[in-house]
Amino acid sequence: MQEHFFIGVDGGGTKCKALLQNHKGEIVGEGLSGSANAATDLPVAIKSIVGACHEALLAAALPLEYLRFCHVGMGLAGVNLPSIRHNMLQWQHPFASVHLTTDLHIACLGAHDGADGAVIITGTGSSAFAVLNGEQLNLGGHGFTAGDKGGGAWIGRAATQVCLEAMDDLAPYSPLVDQLKTHLGCKDATAVAEKVNGAPAVFFASLAPLVLDAAAQQDVIATAILQDAADYLSKLARRLLPH
Amino acid sequence: MQEHFFIGVDGGGTKCKALLQNHKGEIVGEGLSGSANAATDLPVAIKSIVGACHEALLAAALPLEYLRFCHVGMGLAGVNLPSIRHNMLQWQHPFASVHLTTDLHIACLGAHDGADGAVIITGTGSSAFAVLNGEQLNLGGHGFTAGDKGGGAWIGRAATQVCLEAMDDLAPYSPLVDQLKTHLGCKDATAVAEKVNGAPAVFFASLAPLVLDAAAQQDVIATAILQDAADYLSKLARRLLPH
Repeated sequence: MQEHFFIGVDGGGTKCKALLQNHKGEIVGEGLSGSANAATDLPVAIKSIVGACHEALLAAALPLEYLRFCHVGMGLAGVNLPSIRHNMLQWQHPFASVHLTTDLHIACLGAHDGADGAVIITGTGSSAFAVLNGEQLNLGGHGFTAGDKGGGAWIGRAATQVCLEAMDDLAPYSPLVDQLKTHLGCKDATAVAEKVNGAPAVFFASLAPLVLDAAAQQDVIATAILQDAADYLSKLARRLLPH
Repeated sequence: MQEHFFIGVDGGGTKCKALLQNHKGEIVGEGLSGSANAATDLPVAIKSIVGACHEALLAAALPLEYLRFCHVGMGLAGVNLPSIRHNMLQWQHPFASVHLTTDLHIACLGAHDGADGAVIITGTGSSAFAVLNGEQLNLGGHGFTAGDKGGGAWIGRAATQVCLEAMDDLAPYSPLVDQLKTHLGCKDATAVAEKVNGAPAVFFASLAPLVLDAAAQQDVIATAILQDAADYLSKLARRLLPH
């Protein structure tokens, strides 16, 4: 009888990692590839998943056709959205079986060694996840446009908003105002507005380190924004506690 | 000697209006056309301007070639941005002369009969303008992404943000939460997030009437948002006062 293998896939916005185990639970290979956010680009995500699994088989000196003996558990960014999850499940995959869940869920399983627990993740965005007796709780993570408070993009946009108000003399000035103008290479509010209008989350997230540095210098605008971010993340944490 | 004419053009995001005067200052024709926001689509804006002026000449029973005897003063949305203003001034226009300024400036001239004064305009966005002794002051109007506080799009997005937090049990519930879900045809926070992510200003502005109605019913979330909007617009007004 043909031996079975197990692959764990961790697919995020920037990279996709695959770990290959044999039937004894020993890790025999590892693969790494590019972006695997199913909501951003499904074909690219699928390509990254297969690529990382191929690499893991090669690392284990196994033929690529062995994909069909692999049971794959994958945690992917974006599949918390029902329409994206639905599209992902339409995939005629080359594996023995697929178990699909979110990157948040596997982060939680990893952090708590498979036991019940919770995680809060902040990067460009922000979100929280808990699992208790098989029941999952997903909080936040609603995206840059109207959610993801406390994440890097939210921090950068909030700072830009207040700095623009300060440039109009509608909010108290702080050193962050000039630091932002210098960072963006802009002379005035109009130039800043031209630069930031319609910019994506990753652009605003790139401004977050500026705000963190300013807060470390007791900058008033930066401190207020980070306090607001911390308040939200604390509410997330408290909300996870009873679970 | 050929008689000269004067055309006043008011170009906004949804429509463009032209008023034709003879050399005695009598209004002899009027024209109306489509969108003339130079920042959104310059070729469309130019087409709308010429179209409205053509219509005004036709209404005055004058030949279309008379455009070249017309001195045109135009106030256009978008030309407060230097790069847009620069592009607009490259236009090889068919008129005797063009005087270009912003829609805000002509609104202010119109509101105060050409005398010094100030205006605050809120629609999808928000902005303020004052003129005193020939000096112009432009405040706000920095766009939906990180400005235009108190405008319809800002109100709709702010309401969505707080309602999403309330759906996660991170902010107090108010009836607006369910009204928003019903309005969007969404069952839960995830569905709302899918619907609003990346949506343009005009989408969020379409939610503003919902928030205004809720505030009229003393809805807690809606009232707080409108109070915040009113505070900002009051600051704008106070900032205009010394000018």
